[in-house]
Amino acid sequence: MTRDDLEALLAAVRAGDLPVESALERLRGMPYEDLGFARIDHHRGLRNGFPEVVLGEGKTPEQIVAIATRLAAQGSTVLVTRLVPTAAMALQAADPAFEYHPLPRLALRRGTPVAARGRGTILVVSAGTADLPVAEEAALTAEAMGNPVERLYDVGVAGLHRLLGERDRLWRAAVVIVVAGMEGALPSVVGGLVDRPVVAVPTSVGYGTSFGGLAALLGMLNTCASGVVVVNIDNGFGAAAAASRMNRAKEEP
Amino acid sequence: MTRDDLEALLAAVRAGDLPVESALERLRGMPYEDLGFARIDHHRGLRNGFPEVVLGEGKTPEQIVAIATRLAAQGSTVLVTRLVPTAAMALQAADPAFEYHPLPRLALRRGTPVAARGRGTILVVSAGTADLPVAEEAALTAEAMGNPVERLYDVGVAGLHRLLGERDRLWRAAVVIVVAGMEGALPSVVGGLVDRPVVAVPTSVGYGTSFGGLAALLGMLNTCASGVVVVNIDNGFGAAAAASRMNRAKEEP
Amino acid sequence: MTRDDLEALLAAVRAGDLPVESALERLRGMPYEDLGFARIDHHRGLRNGFPEVVLGEGKTPEQIVAIATRLAAQGSTVLVTRLVPTAAMALQAADPAFEYHPLPRLALRRGTPVAARGRGTILVVSAGTADLPVAEEAALTAEAMGNPVERLYDVGVAGLHRLLGERDRLWRAAVVIVVAGMEGALPSVVGGLVDRPVVAVPTSVGYGTSFGGLAALLGMLNTCASGVVVVNIDNGFGAAAAASRMNRAKEEP
Amino acid sequence: MTRDDLEALLAAVRAGDLPVESALERLRGMPYEDLGFARIDHHRGLRNGFPEVVLGEGKTPEQIVAIATRLAAQGSTVLVTRLVPTAAMALQAADPAFEYHPLPRLALRRGTPVAARGRGTILVVSAGTADLPVAEEAALTAEAMGNPVERLYDVGVAGLHRLLGERDRLWRAAVVIVVAGMEGALPSVVGGLVDRPVVAVPTSVGYGTSFGGLAALLGMLNTCASGVVVVNIDNGFGAAAAASRMNRAKEEP
Amino acid sequence: MTRDDLEALLAAVRAGDLPVESALERLRGMPYEDLGFARIDHHRGLRNGFPEVVLGEGKTPEQIVAIATRLAAQGSTVLVTRLVPTAAMALQAADPAFEYHPLPRLALRRGTPVAARGRGTILVVSAGTADLPVAEEAALTAEAMGNPVERLYDVGVAGLHRLLGERDRLWRAAVVIVVAGMEGALPSVVGGLVDRPVVAVPTSVGYGTSFGGLAALLGMLNTCASGVVVVNIDNGFGAAAAASRMNRAKEEP
Amino acid sequence: MTRDDLEALLAAVRAGDLPVESALERLRGMPYEDLGFARIDHHRGLRNGFPEVVLGEGKTPEQIVAIATRLAAQGSTVLVTRLVPTAAMALQAADPAFEYHPLPRLALRRGTPVAARGRGTILVVSAGTADLPVAEEAALTAEAMGNPVERLYDVGVAGLHRLLGERDRLWRAAVVIVVAGMEGALPSVVGGLVDRPVVAVPTSVGYGTSFGGLAALLGMLNTCASGVVVVNIDNGFGAAAAASRMNRAKEEP
Amino acid sequence: MTRDDLEALLAAVRAGDLPVESALERLRGMPYEDLGFARIDHHRGLRNGFPEVVLGEGKTPEQIVAIATRLAAQGSTVLVTRLVPTAAMALQAADPAFEYHPLPRLALRRGTPVAARGRGTILVVSAGTADLPVAEEAALTAEAMGNPVERLYDVGVAGLHRLLGERDRLWRAAVVIVVAGMEGALPSVVGGLVDRPVVAVPTSVGYGTSFGGLAALLGMLNTCASGVVVVNIDNGFGAAAAASRMNRAKEEP
Amino acid sequence: MTRDDLEALLAAVRAGDLPVESALERLRGMPYEDLGFARIDHHRGLRNGFPEVVLGEGKTPEQIVAIATRLAAQGSTVLVTRLVPTAAMALQAADPAFEYHPLPRLALRRGTPVAARGRGTILVVSAGTADLPVAEEAALTAEAMGNPVERLYDVGVAGLHRLLGERDRLWRAAVVIVVAGMEGALPSVVGGLVDRPVVAVPTSVGYGTSFGGLAALLGMLNTCASGVVVVNIDNGFGAAAAASRMNRAKEEP
Repeated sequence: MTRDDLEALLAAVRAGDLPVESALERLRGMPYEDLGFARIDHHRGLRNGFPEVVLGEGKTPEQIVAIATRLAAQGSTVLVTRLVPTAAMALQAADPAFEYHPLPRLALRRGTPVAARGRGTILVVSAGTADLPVAEEAALTAEAMGNPVERLYDVGVAGLHRLLGERDRLWRAAVVIVVAGMEGALPSVVGGLVDRPVVAVPTSVGYGTSFGGLAALLGMLNTCASGVVVVNIDNGFGAAAAASRMNRAKEEP
Repeated sequence: MTRDDLEALLAAVRAGDLPVESALERLRGMPYEDLGFARIDHHRGLRNGFPEVVLGEGKTPEQIVAIATRLAAQGSTVLVTRLVPTAAMALQAADPAFEYHPLPRLALRRGTPVAARGRGTILVVSAGTADLPVAEEAALTAEAMGNPVERLYDVGVAGLHRLLGERDRLWRAAVVIVVAGMEGALPSVVGGLVDRPVVAVPTSVGYGTSFGGLAALLGMLNTCASGVVVVNIDNGFGAAAAASRMNRAKEEP
Repeated sequence: MTRDDLEALLAAVRAGDLPVESALERLRGMPYEDLGFARIDHHRGLRNGFPEVVLGEGKTPEQIVAIATRLAAQGSTVLVTRLVPTAAMALQAADPAFEYHPLPRLALRRGTPVAARGRGTILVVSAGTADLPVAEEAALTAEAMGNPVERLYDVGVAGLHRLLGERDRLWRAAVVIVVAGMEGALPSVVGGLVDRPVVAVPTSVGYGTSFGGLAALLGMLNTCASGVVVVNIDNGFGAAAAASRMNRAKEEP
Repeated sequence: MTRDDLEALLAAVRAGDLPVESALERLRGMPYEDLGFARIDHHRGLRNGFPEVVLGEGKTPEQIVAIATRLAAQGSTVLVTRLVPTAAMALQAADPAFEYHPLPRLALRRGTPVAARGRGTILVVSAGTADLPVAEEAALTAEAMGNPVERLYDVGVAGLHRLLGERDRLWRAAVVIVVAGMEGALPSVVGGLVDRPVVAVPTSVGYGTSFGGLAALLGMLNTCASGVVVVNIDNGFGAAAAASRMNRAKEEP
Repeated sequence: MTRDDLEALLAAVRAGDLPVESALERLRGMPYEDLGFARIDHHRGLRNGFPEVVLGEGKTPEQIVAIATRLAAQGSTVLVTRLVPTAAMALQAADPAFEYHPLPRLALRRGTPVAARGRGTILVVSAGTADLPVAEEAALTAEAMGNPVERLYDVGVAGLHRLLGERDRLWRAAVVIVVAGMEGALPSVVGGLVDRPVVAVPTSVGYGTSFGGLAALLGMLNTCASGVVVVNIDNGFGAAAAASRMNRAKEEP
Repeated sequence: MTRDDLEALLAAVRAGDLPVESALERLRGMPYEDLGFARIDHHRGLRNGFPEVVLGEGKTPEQIVAIATRLAAQGSTVLVTRLVPTAAMALQAADPAFEYHPLPRLALRRGTPVAARGRGTILVVSAGTADLPVAEEAALTAEAMGNPVERLYDVGVAGLHRLLGERDRLWRAAVVIVVAGMEGALPSVVGGLVDRPVVAVPTSVGYGTSFGGLAALLGMLNTCASGVVVVNIDNGFGAAAAASRMNRAKEEP
Repeated sequence: MTRDDLEALLAAVRAGDLPVESALERLRGMPYEDLGFARIDHHRGLRNGFPEVVLGEGKTPEQIVAIATRLAAQGSTVLVTRLVPTAAMALQAADPAFEYHPLPRLALRRGTPVAARGRGTILVVSAGTADLPVAEEAALTAEAMGNPVERLYDVGVAGLHRLLGERDRLWRAAVVIVVAGMEGALPSVVGGLVDRPVVAVPTSVGYGTSFGGLAALLGMLNTCASGVVVVNIDNGFGAAAAASRMNRAKEEP
Repeated sequence: MTRDDLEALLAAVRAGDLPVESALERLRGMPYEDLGFARIDHHRGLRNGFPEVVLGEGKTPEQIVAIATRLAAQGSTVLVTRLVPTAAMALQAADPAFEYHPLPRLALRRGTPVAARGRGTILVVSAGTADLPVAEEAALTAEAMGNPVERLYDVGVAGLHRLLGERDRLWRAAVVIVVAGMEGALPSVVGGLVDRPVVAVPTSVGYGTSFGGLAALLGMLNTCASGVVVVNIDNGFGAAAAASRMNRAKEEP
């Protein structure tokens, strides 16, 4: 419900077209649909620029199918993240329009195309091969949100020439997402090479004192490079959603 | 040294104008100035869009004065963060053009104006009064980097109407910086209200299990709102530097 | 053994009706039943207002069945929490009066009805769908303890209007239980909206730096709202038991 | 702004007594006062049952004086917590009606009396002498909020008879606040003895692996007694605010 | 190799009965047997009062069988702790004299009886039923080391009368081992009731902030009772080994 | 109140010498003295074998003086630990019989001598010179509790021959207290050399990842030597109190 | 690309043999092979002294086979670490020249022999039998890198004579790798006995507060012995790679 | 006492030149000097290649002076680390031959020159100006131990060209010590550039989630570069001592 809607409503009240009780009701009646165990927010697109994404983790397959198909009924693009294969099969059985990407465990239903409002490219950079599931979650999400996406994989800091050899691609991007596990040093190096926003995604890749990505996260938070911001461990989706906002920010204030 | 510089150099080598030995030397001779204990990077402005900022913490007053005055000699805008009052006095004695802001402990020398490339406004939001030093570090930094800045302070989630009453200002901003300590919940709420990038800054405000800002940081990293990215605890400077890149991103890819 | 019992005993000693040795024995003989590996506390109802609840976790199915059926033999309402399905089957085989709720993994045997001493309603609020197992453990426990219970699910802070639209239900409750994972911000918002006690339950829902619910817990402990108290991660039962005491507290000091 | 206010406003709009623009304005104009660095919430009393309490920690003396005197101007009871002596002196200089309690570092200005709505007694129990500052913060806060308060100090579990000898006082209380540092075991014991809500306050009393109260906090969160809820380390104020809500809960749903 | 052995060796060297080279060899040749992957210490009995115990965790079944049977070949009592059932079957196949206790996952071969040097009783106390695997590891180990052992189970602090009713048994013990998970408060209470050494064993029983026994461990380390010492989480064996030394300490300095 | 006292009381009730009301009163009237902020436990000597020790940390000098002089009034030996010099001066001003040891910050008043019930020697071993304050707290406490004490200092594992050269003294001790910071490896080595109980005291000596003694504590808890038990970081007093119980344990069960 | 290569390239530019554009291209074209998901660095041998090692963890079997066989195609020695058996089978199916060691989960293909540049011996010492997988990873890696290797296993500090009896072997080594879990004390003892570099490898062997090797790691980082350096938990490969550099360092600066 | 000494001793025993009792005595009499609170190890030079270094932290000035002057009496080079200025003044008063370096807080007395056995150069690299105290502790220690030392300061990864411009110096070094705070990424980059051992020293430089150097430490432990080993936070001394062993390792096995 936008400010315009509110003005219209109040005008209707004033004109006597809308009784006070009804206005009260509508002011309370928010634009979501209540499934009992979930409240689907159909207007999130208006508010946040993209439809509700379903986080598959922690939900039963039945819940995922119910929510995702309800969203799909609106014709919008629907994204389900962190979806185990069995749940993906249930989802595809209910709506074959969902495609499933096993590496990032992500289901995507391409619906009403999101206006390609991002004029620049989002570049997804990853440090190692084991970071690919997270990098792909970011890349696919950014694409689904209407951004041109490029990939630059396996350019970790231990072999710096692999990154330095691609400096031009770094410079051409509007926003850079850097995905790295272990010591998480890559965003610091990238942040020093470009003057674009760098969204750092720590991954749980590593062992021992990597502590499931904590080492990489701390490395990124303590970066000596400026312009680097961070999201949660393995949160490829979150990085793409934020990068998408940054990319879109170009059009108008 | 940009790509153009490199091309020119190679052309000079080919033309015989530059001996191989000299070219080798210049390829190695990077554009920084070596003070012995510090290497001042005069070309960072070209590369990252803003001159080197001096982190005052951990440096002796003598080192700070030496570095800051050397940078100022180039006429550029110079920012010194986390500067204790005694060091600020030493700096102002050496160069009275530095102004000192005691709350955020920040010294600023306004030099060659940074082109106001950011066309949108950066809105700095803070949860409580105790978060002001960090919020002001962010606001002053963003201003020094050439961005229009607005402030919206003391709108924490325990009194939600204070924030909801300012929804319009939230919507008008190009980038929102949200500064919060304690449970750090404010960025989640703001991230759900706007469709712009939200840079969350956890502060060390709190006690007990706040663990010096760790609780706020974890809250922000685990946000259920999308579009929220995070920087280090109390890192108002870093948030502004990143927001500035996002804001600038508007002009050209 | 209440104060009255003690007085009676001492009077019997004085009257010579009870030898000193027997009195000693009875003073030591506490009202519990020793199964060898467990001491069942049949008087806990008198002392704490509700019979012993069996925590299923960490006990073998054999131990659970032995304890639960022994408690059931007294005719009281019996609750078994954190019960895996196989143990639930063993329990139902031993006593078919136990009903099993798989989502919260809770078995309930409705026995001598607990006096519905709570005059107000306990409202169970949850942030997301994945928090339901914990929310249901709380709701079912509160019901079993004789409280009227309402549910308000999936109203997390990223879509604030879903919560604000239900403000009336929040205000009508006597005690509010708020269940949330990830950043755990919901109790802060609820605590600012109502003037009733808010019992916050962090859940282990989340990933990466959620650290199994630690982020949510810290968020709740550091809440800037007053009136919020916290229980252990995923402890729906504990929240309901405490809320039940608060609700009962209404009758008499 | 209550529901009644909202109804009246809408009726005025309908009657043409209030232009739409003004209604919009008032819907946005929330009842707080903006000091620039702070937004004073004068209606919190209506909403949460008690005026805004000023957390002294992290604020400059100037800020504290400005906020506290502004609140006092409304005639209400004002509480300032975690106030260092020098700030207390500044506050008393500005308004001599503030009394200062050095042990809990708390300033109190007794204004319009809060209706003594709590019909039961809040009992504040502490484990050791070093826990007194926190216990007194709780006790004074609870009193200021209109509750009858009793104190039972230095009854830690290493000398259990000190507690058991006061069982009657435990039973008479409507709500029990238990303050303990070190291993934080006292709430578990108290929770097993009474059937009232027990609000546990871990304190930072201890050394080594007490980790500033973390050990006590974990002990309380993992209590095997039911009916125990927890607040942040050293948060005597928060415990009293919550206990006050529980105590008030007695009158009407 | 005792001091006497050393004297004898040196005397033999002096008498010319032992060449220097041989003496060198023997001084280096320590009394252990090298299996390649393990060095069995047959003289540990002399040095530490009990034969080497095999920690089953982290060893392959083949390694366990090889070490345990080699130790058994000396006729001594052999204890294998933390032995999974499949490894236990392999061990029993190799030497049927090993009995296996599935709850504590412990295998015991009763060999040359250990002299029952402990004159007092070791009392093993546990807080809850889920602590039994650890409590039984302690009890069986203490018995195998020649101590009279008593058990007092399920006497956690939430129902204090269960413990207080057994005060006499507490007082009769020479050493008390207290096994508890969750908040780990029981050793503090026991330490305040008796004047004997109390060996506290935290268990990993619990969930959420129990952090696998860390909460219980911290509770025990921060005990306000004196005379309490602590071992590693779930280390029933270690507690019994230490208690056994304390019990034996009675005979002679 | 011992079992004998209870029997006498009940007999008096039976004989009619004691009215029931008085008996009730006395059963509740436990043997402690209430100073308001502290409850002095004069019978702890009976129960735990040593008078109440005052932990100076966290108490005001006034509280310390009040408690310590009240205990001294009974003529017993009084120990005040973790006493800062200014508080020590206040204590000595109130009662010159208190001697103060600045290194371990401990005040001792030698009163009614504690029966030297420990027949063996307690040996206090320290790893480095910086561990001395804790080692001396342990040694002085053990002496005050009536044990013969020996000291063996600066024998850390990096120069093993310093320890091995004193093997005889290790063997002669009845109980060994090992005090070590940094990696805390010394108790493992000592535990492998002797067959007596080893009480390990981690100290906060170290830097960086020593984390205030946490590294040493973890090292000691994870010892591969048996017979080692652990107390809190820097808890020299606790180690001595426990060792004293172990030493005393020799006389009778 | 070495300095010589660069000189040659520039000379060719000068001579007009290489157009500027081509030089630009070659300066950017780094010597790696791009598989899309991985960039194989064939020149790492030149730069770091040993071909790229494949970390099996986190990679799919398909990725491992693709990378490892591509490296093998160059004829070089190839090492794949942390390889689960199923992936090992896939690798051996693709190239039977790979041998698989199940204990350290390591696959090795002996190719062009690495010049045995290490003139000294690398001694791998382990504390316990459960540390063998890590110790063997270190030993096999060091051998594959061309170093003479010796093994000294199961010489933990609880039975010090096992280590002291092998002092000669310790002294003969050029570099010592010490592998230990639990308290991780062994490197401190070894570091005090020899004057060679000691590379300490903490293992995740242990339970409870071992925290997956953290206790051992902290012990090693806080060693009071000098000359000890540390690698990540369970990182036998890393220890061997570093030791190999130390051993090679002997030939020429 | 070397093997040769032992052989000589045994030969003397055989020849009857040394009575058994005396031999026993000498075998126990280790070469250290007992100051009561410290045992000075005069033979550490023989064993570890360098005299005992005094860690100033945690010792009283009196203790430091006593130990350091006792060591100096042997004429050897003496190093005192982490020495506060007041203690340094006391030391210089006692022995003016000590020079004091305030930045690294290190006192050095140049005595019998250590043979310059290291044939290569140790290069000390630091990331930022604030890391200098630790870098200088490393450089001065390495020099005092007889190594040629070079310094390369302020070459952090955010401005990579500063490091790449000095690649030749990196390649010339025999051992590289890399000192870095914040995210600690520099050793990963250096480890990928050279084939020499890299000793990484995390510093406590940073704020917020740097957690006193923990972030840098974790980054270094999780390095994706091989050949990197790590020492404790701020342990410049330890890095130099280890690097010195690596450098010396060149001469003979």
